Amino acid sequence: MGIGPEVCAAALIGWSGRPLRIIGRWAPMERAAVAVGLSVTRVDAPDAPAPGGAVPVFDPGDAGEPAEVAAIRLAVRACLAGRAAGLVTGPIHKKRLAAQGFAFRGHTDFLAHLCGLPEDAAVMAFVGGELRVALATVHLPLRAVPAALHTPGIVAVVETAVAALRADLGLAAPRVDVCGLNPHAGEDGLLGDEEQHVIGPACALLRARGLAVRGPVSAETAFLAARQGENDLVVAMYHDQGLAPLKAVDFGRSVNWTVGLPILRTSVDHGTADALVGTGRADPASFRAALRLAAEIADRRAAAP
Amino acid sequence: MGIGPEVCAAALIGWSGRPLRIIGRWAPMERAAVAVGLSVTRVDAPDAPAPGGAVPVFDPGDAGEPAEVAAIRLAVRACLAGRAAGLVTGPIHKKRLAAQGFAFRGHTDFLAHLCGLPEDAAVMAFVGGELRVALATVHLPLRAVPAALHTPGIVAVVETAVAALRADLGLAAPRVDVCGLNPHAGEDGLLGDEEQHVIGPACALLRARGLAVRGPVSAETAFLAARQGENDLVVAMYHDQGLAPLKAVDFGRSVNWTVGLPILRTSVDHGTADALVGTGRADPASFRAALRLAAEIADRRAAAP
Repeated sequence: MGIGPEVCAAALIGWSGRPLRIIGRWAPMERAAVAVGLSVTRVDAPDAPAPGGAVPVFDPGDAGEPAEVAAIRLAVRACLAGRAAGLVTGPIHKKRLAAQGFAFRGHTDFLAHLCGLPEDAAVMAFVGGELRVALATVHLPLRAVPAALHTPGIVAVVETAVAALRADLGLAAPRVDVCGLNPHAGEDGLLGDEEQHVIGPACALLRARGLAVRGPVSAETAFLAARQGENDLVVAMYHDQGLAPLKAVDFGRSVNWTVGLPILRTSVDHGTADALVGTGRADPASFRAALRLAAEIADRRAAAP
Repeated sequence: MGIGPEVCAAALIGWSGRPLRIIGRWAPMERAAVAVGLSVTRVDAPDAPAPGGAVPVFDPGDAGEPAEVAAIRLAVRACLAGRAAGLVTGPIHKKRLAAQGFAFRGHTDFLAHLCGLPEDAAVMAFVGGELRVALATVHLPLRAVPAALHTPGIVAVVETAVAALRADLGLAAPRVDVCGLNPHAGEDGLLGDEEQHVIGPACALLRARGLAVRGPVSAETAFLAARQGENDLVVAMYHDQGLAPLKAVDFGRSVNWTVGLPILRTSVDHGTADALVGTGRADPASFRAALRLAAEIADRRAAAP
């Protein structure tokens, strides 16, 4: 089942922000809520309120697909229809869902699909304590990464992320460090040439469009620069290049933030951690941070002219 | 020219450990020493002492090769002959040396060659404040990494690094996390299969030999685990996987430590940073840390039965 229900319940204890509702399986959610003393009530429609300050929980039932998938579908529909300001997701188990016929690599491409957009419209970004990271490629085997990088794609990722930092985080002119693909960003072509042929041209185009972009820079220095306040965003070329430094620094408190979609969505940055279920050792910090970031962005959007 | 002389001079101010000597170009070294008030004297043989507590500097002169290369050659010879306990190196500019005919990718493979060993005998390791990292591959274009990984090579890297942690850092039974190559360590084959065919078998063999090895683990979690005290060493499959997290955490104070050679060698973890020369902004922290680590290991070796 995963730790989703219990980190969700624990994160909601003491929540005093916007009203929330939960979509997911009732039984594990109720169990998790009881364990931490959270008041929940099962409701019979996704948008139904719960009496007496309890958090309403809607169970999608047997919708002909895994409950997580049905829940995401309902939540995106509510966001698109303006009935919800945003969506915070727990972890899903990709391999388990794939075995049940789920055709997407993860939340992000599924969300793009539900919004009627091509998969690459959604950019996976992360916000940690001191670091903000966007990924140019995500869930690819490492050997597929070099061929998957192309100049227009990198340009689009940076522009999408910069637009989100402006609109949703209030950063007027984000300073962006774009990582190289190779060690030392290729060391002038000695250690690979994607910097010269793919990433460098993307950076040059972005600068020509007026964005404050440095790069390609070595990943070794980009994250250090971020911690020293020298950039507002690091764009990594692949998953581990961005997430290994982020998580080393942010100790599991970082938030997965999908940018480029018409809906607001944040998520925990961890997996289902099945082995921790019921042990009381699952850390709700990331869920809590995801909730806070979503509320902060929703408030900023609501206040925007 | 690079910042080597100035970080060396700054790092030696206040040094009260083992006696030191410098091999390198006299003019920039003298200039750097004067700038920080370090007392140096030019000597006419690599092993000659300097009078009155000054640090002796031997200039290799025109040896038919770049001065950095000649200096490393002399220093390794002194270590192999027992006339020096260890070697601390400053940065070299790989592309500039390559243009001058230097046939090695960097210090590490050159050092192996000077010790009469194959290139892969030398393992590049790093010691930072809280993190220790060894690299299974080093200065390769990213696209060449998957094919360069093989089970015996990973086994050898881990065994070499573990032996060094035992002998030189006094860790009796180092706990090692071996990273996967792919996102989420391949997610059970969904995102790449090197974990199943190459890295997993290496980990199993190492465990069968009695080493405390976990893995393949996701790089996202390995460095977090290191910071939480759950491992003593992270073995990364490639350069940025190891160094981006290390440097994000250790802020340029980490030390490059070559293990697997008969000589003791540490080094700064940064490049020549030519743009900083003479600005007073070059940070000697890494050189100082490299010096301290070398002295600590030399003392431990001297005290060993």
